[in-house]
Amino acid sequence: MSAAKRQKTSKDGVSYELIYWPGIPGRGEHIRLALEEGGATYTDTAQPGQGGADPVLSMIGESNKGDDANPPCLAPPMLRHGDLVISQTPNILMYLAPRLGLAPSADEDEDAIYRLNALVLTALDGLSNEVHDCHHPIAVGLYYEDQKEESLRRTRDYVANRLPKFLGYFEKVLQGQASGEGPWLYGGRLTYADLVLFHCVDGLKFMFPKAMKLMEKEHKGVFALYEAVKARPKIQAYLASDRRQPYSQGIYRHYDELDITE
Amino acid sequence: MSAAKRQKTSKDGVSYELIYWPGIPGRGEHIRLALEEGGATYTDTAQPGQGGADPVLSMIGESNKGDDANPPCLAPPMLRHGDLVISQTPNILMYLAPRLGLAPSADEDEDAIYRLNALVLTALDGLSNEVHDCHHPIAVGLYYEDQKEESLRRTRDYVANRLPKFLGYFEKVLQGQASGEGPWLYGGRLTYADLVLFHCVDGLKFMFPKAMKLMEKEHKGVFALYEAVKARPKIQAYLASDRRQPYSQGIYRHYDELDITE
Repeated sequence: MSAAKRQKTSKDGVSYELIYWPGIPGRGEHIRLALEEGGATYTDTAQPGQGGADPVLSMIGESNKGDDANPPCLAPPMLRHGDLVISQTPNILMYLAPRLGLAPSADEDEDAIYRLNALVLTALDGLSNEVHDCHHPIAVGLYYEDQKEESLRRTRDYVANRLPKFLGYFEKVLQGQASGEGPWLYGGRLTYADLVLFHCVDGLKFMFPKAMKLMEKEHKGVFALYEAVKARPKIQAYLASDRRQPYSQGIYRHYDELDITE
Repeated sequence: MSAAKRQKTSKDGVSYELIYWPGIPGRGEHIRLALEEGGATYTDTAQPGQGGADPVLSMIGESNKGDDANPPCLAPPMLRHGDLVISQTPNILMYLAPRLGLAPSADEDEDAIYRLNALVLTALDGLSNEVHDCHHPIAVGLYYEDQKEESLRRTRDYVANRLPKFLGYFEKVLQGQASGEGPWLYGGRLTYADLVLFHCVDGLKFMFPKAMKLMEKEHKGVFALYEAVKARPKIQAYLASDRRQPYSQGIYRHYDELDITE
């Protein structure tokens, strides 16, 4: 048995530690959904009694230069698993998914993870990162109130062009042969890509309820996937629990004046 | 030998096909730099006689729903390698890097690729994607000329806050223990993360020469890495060749009115 294999085995019983801001689902939500659906044992700094924002701040503070194996992280979400500390949502998910049964392992199908990662990066680009820019088109460091006019202009473009483009893409993926049977994006089985798309749709329904209602007719597959994920017993239990953070001042925000249909 | 290992071996002699827009370095440049430094045999649709934009358009067209193994792609760059077709810059790089000797293989160190991917995603977030928003803060579908005022406002924030934040982060990574000896970001050796940071810095020097000049003093490690990559024989040969696309209307654009220092 190689050193690498021994290392993998030695982490198998080790609990996962999610390091993320309290008070919003945020990008951390994608990690939580994977951990919950995968039945993982994990801690979450967003939970009460875990130090609030302090664990995040100490990880990303100027004086933390990482350790001899891990570079420092710039921003949460971060995951600690044994000696490994990593950041970046799609990266953490790629690490977790094969371990949690949410993606084929390399032994099963060594190319599958790259197909899934492409789907995940595309969902996060168009249905998460671009959404944040709808209320912060000029500067992340300014308040929404300081960029309201530009936000409305950007949101008009988002709702008219970008939202249908990205939902239409995932509808096409669901119609393709590689999606297989059932409501899932890839290989006829639930993967972490479905969980990512679920949360994007959930956030968009909170932020743009009117526009998302209009999207239902042309994107039946995407909304069926959303319902299929939501109905899974572990996801249902999680969403009803106090481990789920409420929407507030994160990526997905509801402003009445941005809840437009064109 | 497992089926997965056989599959990997069967692709070892197969040429890589980069499918990307002609006429700009764009996101495809990160793929080209890895292929060039890795000494790979590859084709590039951006080269003369390769069909111009047609190969890209046919891959992302409405009627292409992928095949029984590969979901369709939304946007280039795309990579075909044997039966595999994938999109998304950091994803393609993650696939290529261990094969091209630009990242440790899983047998060498199974966690290294996740540390590198975090660095790459962070560089692309702050030093590529956000840069595009400097000239397109309102809508990617509009011309720069239709969003000039907002572009200047966004660029002011970028140059004052975001650029030093991200360059400062990579300077910190270079000071950390995990970077090891030499000018490199991780493990005391050149990896694909260094190539990504190199191209980001190169593009930023083209777009914001004045601001980047001011950055040199406080970010000596980042600029030393830039020079170290540029001096590598294969990179030097590539940059001098006609395989290198000139900067024009891509991510990194030079507008005099956006070449500001505060």
